[in-house]
Amino acid sequence: MAEETTNERVTLLRRMIGTDPRYWPYPIPRNLGAHLLEVEEGRAKIKVTVQADWLNPLKIMHGGIMVTLMDEMMGLCGYTLNQPHGYATINLTADYLASAKEGDILYVYGEIEKKGRQLIHAVSYIEHENGRKVAKATSNLLAFHPK
Amino acid sequence: MAEETTNERVTLLRRMIGTDPRYWPYPIPRNLGAHLLEVEEGRAKIKVTVQADWLNPLKIMHGGIMVTLMDEMMGLCGYTLNQPHGYATINLTADYLASAKEGDILYVYGEIEKKGRQLIHAVSYIEHENGRKVAKATSNLLAFHPK
Amino acid sequence: MAEETTNERVTLLRRMIGTDPRYWPYPIPRNLGAHLLEVEEGRAKIKVTVQADWLNPLKIMHGGIMVTLMDEMMGLCGYTLNQPHGYATINLTADYLASAKEGDILYVYGEIEKKGRQLIHAVSYIEHENGRKVAKATSNLLAFHPK
Amino acid sequence: MAEETTNERVTLLRRMIGTDPRYWPYPIPRNLGAHLLEVEEGRAKIKVTVQADWLNPLKIMHGGIMVTLMDEMMGLCGYTLNQPHGYATINLTADYLASAKEGDILYVYGEIEKKGRQLIHAVSYIEHENGRKVAKATSNLLAFHPK
Repeated sequence: MAEETTNERVTLLRRMIGTDPRYWPYPIPRNLGAHLLEVEEGRAKIKVTVQADWLNPLKIMHGGIMVTLMDEMMGLCGYTLNQPHGYATINLTADYLASAKEGDILYVYGEIEKKGRQLIHAVSYIEHENGRKVAKATSNLLAFHPK
Repeated sequence: MAEETTNERVTLLRRMIGTDPRYWPYPIPRNLGAHLLEVEEGRAKIKVTVQADWLNPLKIMHGGIMVTLMDEMMGLCGYTLNQPHGYATINLTADYLASAKEGDILYVYGEIEKKGRQLIHAVSYIEHENGRKVAKATSNLLAFHPK
Repeated sequence: MAEETTNERVTLLRRMIGTDPRYWPYPIPRNLGAHLLEVEEGRAKIKVTVQADWLNPLKIMHGGIMVTLMDEMMGLCGYTLNQPHGYATINLTADYLASAKEGDILYVYGEIEKKGRQLIHAVSYIEHENGRKVAKATSNLLAFHPK
Repeated sequence: MAEETTNERVTLLRRMIGTDPRYWPYPIPRNLGAHLLEVEEGRAKIKVTVQADWLNPLKIMHGGIMVTLMDEMMGLCGYTLNQPHGYATINLTADYLASAKEGDILYVYGEIEKKGRQLIHAVSYIEHENGRKVAKATSNLLAFHPK
């Protein structure tokens, strides 16, 4: 069971656990059919099923969709830090380690590995239901204070 | 005007220039509404318009969609090399340089910067209609010979 | 205590544990004063002390030296796989997480995270004696068979 | 001929053009024997000769030394922006495109591709005297204001 928290954003996100992906208030996770499984401050996990629309001409999952999932998770983890400011992603690196095909079930993990005053460093990876690591990513994000 | 070519894949792709994006035979460029503008051996350019569905909670274009566009273009450029084998993307790095919002018109460029026997190195970038560079990416791809 | 091994390269490297860094047969680890602490198949750990020569104008350790240490460790880990072929590094990504100054003691870890037939994916990180992570890196390497 | 400049740091650096590398006030470029060839605001070029000490066990130039040269050049280019604050390197990505051996002459180019208020994006590459690109790198740097 998840730890209790006074972090209001974590509390809010946890209410989405087990709900239909169509209830996401934002288009990217909604359209990717992301099932939120776990969320802590600085950490989250979702589940997705590979859609026919995500395939490249070789009939395997497009790397861009993998990155979209991981980028989304790293941004979400930044959000769970519950800071008054937002974070802008500076860069992303991704490594593709295995392929996935239509109907495969994937878990996407995100975590804030280091939290600085201005910069945070986030990591993410995608694990196939069969235990293989499919892809991994890192990002650096910059705190920004809207004018 | 584009150079004449004996490369049959380039010839085939050029027939798509000016056609409706719904005619792409593959879901990723079709769903992203990619207009093919130019294609040479090892080089291509498309145009897209930022959709409401591509936005993150800050109402700016999601980095994952930027990467999907660039990853797609680098894969397409690999295809134009007209080799008997395919290419698998090993890794991707992306830098986010500026934001884009709904309705913005973006050009996505791809190019094979180095073509080796086993490895190719590809680059891509997204340029806003206003001339600003929005994002850039690099990938290394490995030739693979299906068994 | 390290596990017993029939891997001859691991056996050979283990004989260097506890010896003077000047006994390295190769210039990079020798000149960096790398003390080999642990080695397994696909995994190794060294210790170094930050030298005055490694500093940038801000009197902190130059990122290039951090990368040299991590690149070296990932190559060493590839070597411990004891394959008949060599590995060529395709790319490297590094994130700088904390600074180090002259005299600081650093541990550098390397590991082969994924071993494929043609490609291996390696990771490395530098940890300060005080427990802080200073930098991390990833590389993809390609098996090559000299002609 | 270089453009005239009122940038005092560029002026200062230009006095080093043609001088012995041992006159560098900092250990990294001094020890790498970097000959400064050109410097503009946000752009610079050096020349080095591959030393025996830079080789890996395969007798080709170690990737870490390539990165050290490129990291150094990107930091130098940040310095030429002549800002009251310094820049800290957040991350670096490098791609290795060709090998170099002892005695080879290499040119290392650096450039600030984008200059923001808080972030700058730098690129660098190494070109062999024979015209081949040996390696390329990118970095993001953050302006920091010493307390």
